[in-house]
Amino acid sequence: MTSLIPLPSSLEPFLDPYLPSGKDSSSRLNSQWPFITLTYACSLDSRIAIAKGQQTVISHLETKTMTHYIRSKHDAILVGVGTVLADNPGLNCRYQAASKIRPVIIDPSFKTPVVVNGQASRLIRTARDHQGLGPFVVIGPELDLSQSPIREKVDIIQQVGGKVIQLKSYDQDNSNAKHLSWNDILARLKAEGLASVMIEGGAVVINHLLSVRPSLVDSLIITIGPVFLGENGVQVSPYTDLQLTDVEWWKGSRDVVLAARVGIA
Amino acid sequence: MTSLIPLPSSLEPFLDPYLPSGKDSSSRLNSQWPFITLTYACSLDSRIAIAKGQQTVISHLETKTMTHYIRSKHDAILVGVGTVLADNPGLNCRYQAASKIRPVIIDPSFKTPVVVNGQASRLIRTARDHQGLGPFVVIGPELDLSQSPIREKVDIIQQVGGKVIQLKSYDQDNSNAKHLSWNDILARLKAEGLASVMIEGGAVVINHLLSVRPSLVDSLIITIGPVFLGENGVQVSPYTDLQLTDVEWWKGSRDVVLAARVGIA
Repeated sequence: MTSLIPLPSSLEPFLDPYLPSGKDSSSRLNSQWPFITLTYACSLDSRIAIAKGQQTVISHLETKTMTHYIRSKHDAILVGVGTVLADNPGLNCRYQAASKIRPVIIDPSFKTPVVVNGQASRLIRTARDHQGLGPFVVIGPELDLSQSPIREKVDIIQQVGGKVIQLKSYDQDNSNAKHLSWNDILARLKAEGLASVMIEGGAVVINHLLSVRPSLVDSLIITIGPVFLGENGVQVSPYTDLQLTDVEWWKGSRDVVLAARVGIA
Repeated sequence: MTSLIPLPSSLEPFLDPYLPSGKDSSSRLNSQWPFITLTYACSLDSRIAIAKGQQTVISHLETKTMTHYIRSKHDAILVGVGTVLADNPGLNCRYQAASKIRPVIIDPSFKTPVVVNGQASRLIRTARDHQGLGPFVVIGPELDLSQSPIREKVDIIQQVGGKVIQLKSYDQDNSNAKHLSWNDILARLKAEGLASVMIEGGAVVINHLLSVRPSLVDSLIITIGPVFLGENGVQVSPYTDLQLTDVEWWKGSRDVVLAARVGIA
């Protein structure tokens, strides 16, 4: 685990209007859904990794610090199970006096591992060592939680203060793919007391979320690194076009960061 | 034809090191190839148009002025025939006392029209009206220039000071697609007295050029507009990853512009 460099002083005033605590954010905090911040780092050709499952360094260390700063302003951090399988991430917050942020994994088939390479996964270890909270794993309706080995995984997650949340149905959209409904997921997270959720990836989650209309995303924070990853990389692009408002750019030592609002014309 | 807004004063010092006249550029000007500047405007998801053949406004008017400023620093402006068919562009330079820039069309099957909607194409009209130079159209080896209607198209292009340049062969690369060889094209343009070439698109040209190794591109200037065009848009992404050097960013009122060098480690 690398240590963080200090947050560039100009980043805090740049980001704050787009965070749940920002002055324009209070109305959303009272809605039935959590305040949603979507954030990721991509290449010039909008790739977040050079190939599927391959963690790729795109952005400068200063934007890694930024990620932990943004995490410190949210109740939960949400990723898709693909990111958990690819990165074995800790999903905690290491900014200053690390605040407690709840990891949430969208995992329809419950593939989140509790053991990786013969030892507890970083998610489980981080919670067990009190470096973070136990994960909430959101799973699909057809799984039988009373059956082994699912039962044992649920136990381990509960032992570290986490929870397995089983949704009642899949989304009734027109696509053939089975998606959990974002409306269901977010309403449930709000009911669990999570008023603000930072969504970090991966591409399946980002592309789906950017494609829901009207948009559920409140703030969008994108880091663009000056590299091309190429056409075989893992791409971010919504199903249709999307306009942004209140656009601001921050110029780092190597990257730029875009902050914008979505879905508020 | 819309008029240009003034060039933002900070853009000139930002761009100049990356232009053929820049102090680090002289070595390339003596090589067998022209100095190559590749430039385009894209969305956050690296799309240059919302659909094939559909001209899409992505960037702010200030970056349109930038395009004409950059054109004023080059001997030639090069595009693929797809851009000519989609946009019916003038491809001249309207920055200040408009310098003369040579339009070059890469057009293996010689599809460049001389008549569009019953009147001379903008390329032909612009040259006839002395608002620009006649185009150089680079075509593939199998076309018979003595046959009608090819002969008539060649005549019209020559009448406005242009030229049809027929290359002797296609590229001998591993792909099935027939590409003219960039080495052949650029050596020929240099022999025609064009020491600097600005390449503006479209996606076929950009993606192919970004994929040639070692890179033929000297400078890369990309405008990124804060919009998503969606997965059906026309995408820029090279065949493999590509590292950039000497990266600088300019922050506009709405867009950012990246300037970088390519192929010089």
